[in-house]
Amino acid sequence: MGSSFGKNINVSIFGQSHSASIGVVIDGLPAGHRIDMEKLGQFMSRRAPGRNEYSTQRSESDTPVILSGLKDGVLCGAPFAAVIKNTDAVSRDYSELSDKPRPGHADFTAQMKYNGTQDHSGGGHFSGRLTAPLCIAGGIMLQLLEEEGIKVGAHICEIAGVRDFSFDPVNVSEEDFDRLRASSFPVNDPEAGEIMKTAISAAKKAGNSVGGIIECAAIGLPAGVGDPMFDGMENMIACTVFAVPAVKGIEFGSGFAGSRSMGSANNDPFTCENGMIRTLTNNHGGILGGITSGMPLIFRAAIKPTPSISIEQDTVSFSTKEKAKISTKGRHDPCIVPRAIPCVESAASIAIYDSLLGSRIYRKGENR
Amino acid sequence: MGSSFGKNINVSIFGQSHSASIGVVIDGLPAGHRIDMEKLGQFMSRRAPGRNEYSTQRSESDTPVILSGLKDGVLCGAPFAAVIKNTDAVSRDYSELSDKPRPGHADFTAQMKYNGTQDHSGGGHFSGRLTAPLCIAGGIMLQLLEEEGIKVGAHICEIAGVRDFSFDPVNVSEEDFDRLRASSFPVNDPEAGEIMKTAISAAKKAGNSVGGIIECAAIGLPAGVGDPMFDGMENMIACTVFAVPAVKGIEFGSGFAGSRSMGSANNDPFTCENGMIRTLTNNHGGILGGITSGMPLIFRAAIKPTPSISIEQDTVSFSTKEKAKISTKGRHDPCIVPRAIPCVESAASIAIYDSLLGSRIYRKGENR
Amino acid sequence: MGSSFGKNINVSIFGQSHSASIGVVIDGLPAGHRIDMEKLGQFMSRRAPGRNEYSTQRSESDTPVILSGLKDGVLCGAPFAAVIKNTDAVSRDYSELSDKPRPGHADFTAQMKYNGTQDHSGGGHFSGRLTAPLCIAGGIMLQLLEEEGIKVGAHICEIAGVRDFSFDPVNVSEEDFDRLRASSFPVNDPEAGEIMKTAISAAKKAGNSVGGIIECAAIGLPAGVGDPMFDGMENMIACTVFAVPAVKGIEFGSGFAGSRSMGSANNDPFTCENGMIRTLTNNHGGILGGITSGMPLIFRAAIKPTPSISIEQDTVSFSTKEKAKISTKGRHDPCIVPRAIPCVESAASIAIYDSLLGSRIYRKGENR
Amino acid sequence: MGSSFGKNINVSIFGQSHSASIGVVIDGLPAGHRIDMEKLGQFMSRRAPGRNEYSTQRSESDTPVILSGLKDGVLCGAPFAAVIKNTDAVSRDYSELSDKPRPGHADFTAQMKYNGTQDHSGGGHFSGRLTAPLCIAGGIMLQLLEEEGIKVGAHICEIAGVRDFSFDPVNVSEEDFDRLRASSFPVNDPEAGEIMKTAISAAKKAGNSVGGIIECAAIGLPAGVGDPMFDGMENMIACTVFAVPAVKGIEFGSGFAGSRSMGSANNDPFTCENGMIRTLTNNHGGILGGITSGMPLIFRAAIKPTPSISIEQDTVSFSTKEKAKISTKGRHDPCIVPRAIPCVESAASIAIYDSLLGSRIYRKGENR
Repeated sequence: MGSSFGKNINVSIFGQSHSASIGVVIDGLPAGHRIDMEKLGQFMSRRAPGRNEYSTQRSESDTPVILSGLKDGVLCGAPFAAVIKNTDAVSRDYSELSDKPRPGHADFTAQMKYNGTQDHSGGGHFSGRLTAPLCIAGGIMLQLLEEEGIKVGAHICEIAGVRDFSFDPVNVSEEDFDRLRASSFPVNDPEAGEIMKTAISAAKKAGNSVGGIIECAAIGLPAGVGDPMFDGMENMIACTVFAVPAVKGIEFGSGFAGSRSMGSANNDPFTCENGMIRTLTNNHGGILGGITSGMPLIFRAAIKPTPSISIEQDTVSFSTKEKAKISTKGRHDPCIVPRAIPCVESAASIAIYDSLLGSRIYRKGENR
Repeated sequence: MGSSFGKNINVSIFGQSHSASIGVVIDGLPAGHRIDMEKLGQFMSRRAPGRNEYSTQRSESDTPVILSGLKDGVLCGAPFAAVIKNTDAVSRDYSELSDKPRPGHADFTAQMKYNGTQDHSGGGHFSGRLTAPLCIAGGIMLQLLEEEGIKVGAHICEIAGVRDFSFDPVNVSEEDFDRLRASSFPVNDPEAGEIMKTAISAAKKAGNSVGGIIECAAIGLPAGVGDPMFDGMENMIACTVFAVPAVKGIEFGSGFAGSRSMGSANNDPFTCENGMIRTLTNNHGGILGGITSGMPLIFRAAIKPTPSISIEQDTVSFSTKEKAKISTKGRHDPCIVPRAIPCVESAASIAIYDSLLGSRIYRKGENR
Repeated sequence: MGSSFGKNINVSIFGQSHSASIGVVIDGLPAGHRIDMEKLGQFMSRRAPGRNEYSTQRSESDTPVILSGLKDGVLCGAPFAAVIKNTDAVSRDYSELSDKPRPGHADFTAQMKYNGTQDHSGGGHFSGRLTAPLCIAGGIMLQLLEEEGIKVGAHICEIAGVRDFSFDPVNVSEEDFDRLRASSFPVNDPEAGEIMKTAISAAKKAGNSVGGIIECAAIGLPAGVGDPMFDGMENMIACTVFAVPAVKGIEFGSGFAGSRSMGSANNDPFTCENGMIRTLTNNHGGILGGITSGMPLIFRAAIKPTPSISIEQDTVSFSTKEKAKISTKGRHDPCIVPRAIPCVESAASIAIYDSLLGSRIYRKGENR
Repeated sequence: MGSSFGKNINVSIFGQSHSASIGVVIDGLPAGHRIDMEKLGQFMSRRAPGRNEYSTQRSESDTPVILSGLKDGVLCGAPFAAVIKNTDAVSRDYSELSDKPRPGHADFTAQMKYNGTQDHSGGGHFSGRLTAPLCIAGGIMLQLLEEEGIKVGAHICEIAGVRDFSFDPVNVSEEDFDRLRASSFPVNDPEAGEIMKTAISAAKKAGNSVGGIIECAAIGLPAGVGDPMFDGMENMIACTVFAVPAVKGIEFGSGFAGSRSMGSANNDPFTCENGMIRTLTNNHGGILGGITSGMPLIFRAAIKPTPSISIEQDTVSFSTKEKAKISTKGRHDPCIVPRAIPCVESAASIAIYDSLLGSRIYRKGENR
């Protein structure tokens, strides 16, 4: 049941790289909210392939078709369902995969799990293409979060080891998000961005690939959202962000670096501004004990280099159990970090909105 | 519902730092497996307070009392329940907390979530003490995993920035685990260990604290365990490991470092040994597409420095909304990393065993 | 999240009576099983409208279009998704409903839950039309159950108070199911069937409607499936069967009548035949303590008379809060019992297959 | 995982008839509500054994000991946990059961599910004794429901075929509940009650047993609680009520009898009183489309005759697979209906409160 998520909503994603359609059903969304389809389309386009020279040339319109859940453009309480048709699927590119697993891909593990009955074409259900329905769900959540005064944004924090300026953990703002969203290569430091692009181009020329880090923030979140232990905000966000292919690490606030600080430096002192308690610094990344503090929620996700490279690699043949060579010839991104930005925003938004629905802040009956 | 976890089992943890008891109920365990109580006790003792000079002086026997679920020492299919009595609770140490939140703790966020009705004593349900029932559950899972030929072990990977030798990602062995388990300060490099201890002692003397990184591995896992997307092994393990207080980051395989490699370097080539397909390197940390590859599953968790320090810190008063000072006087660990080792092993074991129960490898009816 | 079901699978149903499409996603199905699409179509046709003179004249082809989850006709491990286009939707029939709730329908309760934002047309998500995707899911489950040697069948047990012969609770057979499935009015006693038809015709002529009882059985179920307490077979089947609109009661084995027996009469004595333990009678309906006994699983569901009648009824206006009259003019079944048969079979099959996936019988690792 | 329930809360019940303790953990209860322990004790005493001549002579104090979740008597947000010690357990009574299954009990099915590793003593986890922790959970829920203005009550509707007056489905009142709660044999018609008692006494004398029907109602429920399809109020209540041992059927509103009415008679016309829409009759039992209508929620549960009888019955030996005789000698109720009353109220309260927590009525953010 790995393709379903949610405690208060049920997000169920389906499709394979080359199935008739891919799509998503979201059950449990509150009724009465208008969905701005144009805004959803704009959000989707940030993930769409073929957007710039660094991304795959596969061009799908990626326009979601709404099947149900809306009445005159407003969520009507019935499950929301949307699909995207797979029109530009070129299955022949992948014929080799049924026998020779690509290093760094799920071909081998899928073979072991499904015993050869899985859909190999284009990586099947494990394809990055499945982030399109994730982004449909995320795009919806972003709009619902905005109605609660919550914004989510992300930037390229690192590519090929080149570091962008981090978000100001205390003062990251909506303006930051707006600026980043307007860019096809969203960085805080344009100079670093240029070096990153050079690294990507070099990797592309060499038939190789590079990875990076995405930093994501949510602002406007009230304090008190999330649960102790297993359903903390870190747990839930990790649970959705690792659903984005190629993510291999996540850290909140000062994260791994913070583990090298002293307690006196890593603890965030409390202060009171206009009757509102906040922290002076934000090493905790907006989460303490799994629960939001009202400070910006900040995390970083490590994205491995695209496993699809045209350089020849060692593999084996399932059928002969002998060593073999493979070089991935399809249309692939030398660096998926830029296109993964809206995916990470989507994953975070799904987790945050689900937690918000279950929180006291959202429920009236508690602590009256 | 944050204190419950599981898809195929339901682990439900309860208790507060100073409630009558703390404990755990595990529903859905397969019947017929003998539980070695002595082994469970030994495992628990690795987490117990007062074990060495670096840990809190609070001494609880921490012996779990089994309430149900066993028949003549064997799991009988009924939910397993065990409790630990809180005998050495000194509530007066914490009287200040109801009005002044400790920086780096969940005092403030709990106040916002529960509106002041939470149990403040000793951090209540957010106390590190709640890792004791987590370790009961983990200790049970470790035994059940061993019956399937799966072992889980961990070491101090880093404290105060001092780095231990990492596990050999391809060849980490049961012998490594045995050696580490026998030590009260489990490191691969004894010299690094000595420097770490010096750093902890210095922090203690200064009334300060240090953090670190724990590296954990699981070996003997068959290939094909885990699910795509939201229920992948990374998602599930992150979901349980973030339940350990103070964890602020997690990475699998080459993780954040891997995001700085080229695809050609980070991809793990396949090979075939004795008819079994494996990878030559293990940057993927034993997981591809959320599913186990049969290679050692390896992850690292970042542990922030203990937030409880005796150095005076800035905080505010809930009642007056004015600035205040706080210095935590209770009995606290200057570094919780050593005691967190069995907690991280427990968290990982719970996630792995739950996934195993849901896997084709464990279920007979599939792919016949 | 009411439209999702499952512990080991996730069945997520979407659509409204007049949305673009209706459909279902099933996550967690085991890979490797071939789906017979023709058989699925035949099963769907048993529920389809316009099949005989007693059913609504709305004619939809009701042919499910598979979007994902199959590879060359075989379940490939990815979520299964299928949709049915709503082609013959006549929304104008229902324009009145947005202001005047129909007695016996969910119009009023939906208004209270969704505050007027729900889709009123044709009952929206509460329409009987949503049993079509339920039957897609059920039809798939029936095929998967058959591979395990389990068959599910049902008959009209009662219409308008006219009683059919019950299944022989000890010896109900596959032949019974085959015979019933071949009939558009499946009864065990053809004479009773004729009287039922007369009652339906009379109700139709009067612009009125009648209800009835469906008896459903599952045979070939191994003993030991199901769980204690909340996840017993009775609980799970009740949970899915009450999802069929108009069901207002369910009883297992001797049910309500059994509550009037003495213990000595209602208890089923054990016997042993060819080394296999079974019961001589089957008042327990194949379930004891929530777990299957290996005897036929038998239950009956009470179906209320179709609430849509053309006789004028009292209602109120949402807008004016004044009394009003309503008579439902759309195309409706004077008795939905015949068409509800495959729906009840589907509901039962979903619950049974989900329980089977979680059972020891299906999992290899237990009680070795 | 059968002993856990809940969408918005997690109720996890544990224990065996003769384990050290039985108990319950409830995760997800809203913080800030005071629990009246005396009231809880009074509620528990209605279920307690040894209360009158018709019930088993086993006398346990059945006083729940609170382990966690309360702070100064108020729910503190941490999981609520309570246990009852098993003090009067006489295991020898049940020694025979490990080889010879009692007809009508779960002995045989447990043997098949757990392969002989289950706890046989007193029925183990399947014992009616496990309704004590169910009643702890139910007693808590009843108090929380009362804070929302919702009351739940039940009466003996039938024993041994003798019928009590039903609740007035439109006007059942708090006074009815108060009167019934004060009685150890709660009926609406005292004369019918006397005949029932005679029937029970006769059954007891004959070493036999009788069953019956319990009718339960909830009043004060706002309209709009519950979800479509699988999470409707009928589904959820059925899911918890079938957790009460011996329940073999459930019907809502007019139920099975309603299936014999015409639509014109079974439909409940709407009216408007003081600006509030209600129905003139209540054949729908307060639920339409799975969602509450604001009318009294009414259901009836069929309770089979106690399977434990001292009359000799036919069974088989697990070990020899030969026919055998058994007569249950322990201390058993000739009719469990009176003691099942608070259990059914508990089951209903758990389902209702869980649904309430997830409803728009309880959540502020929807339909603004």
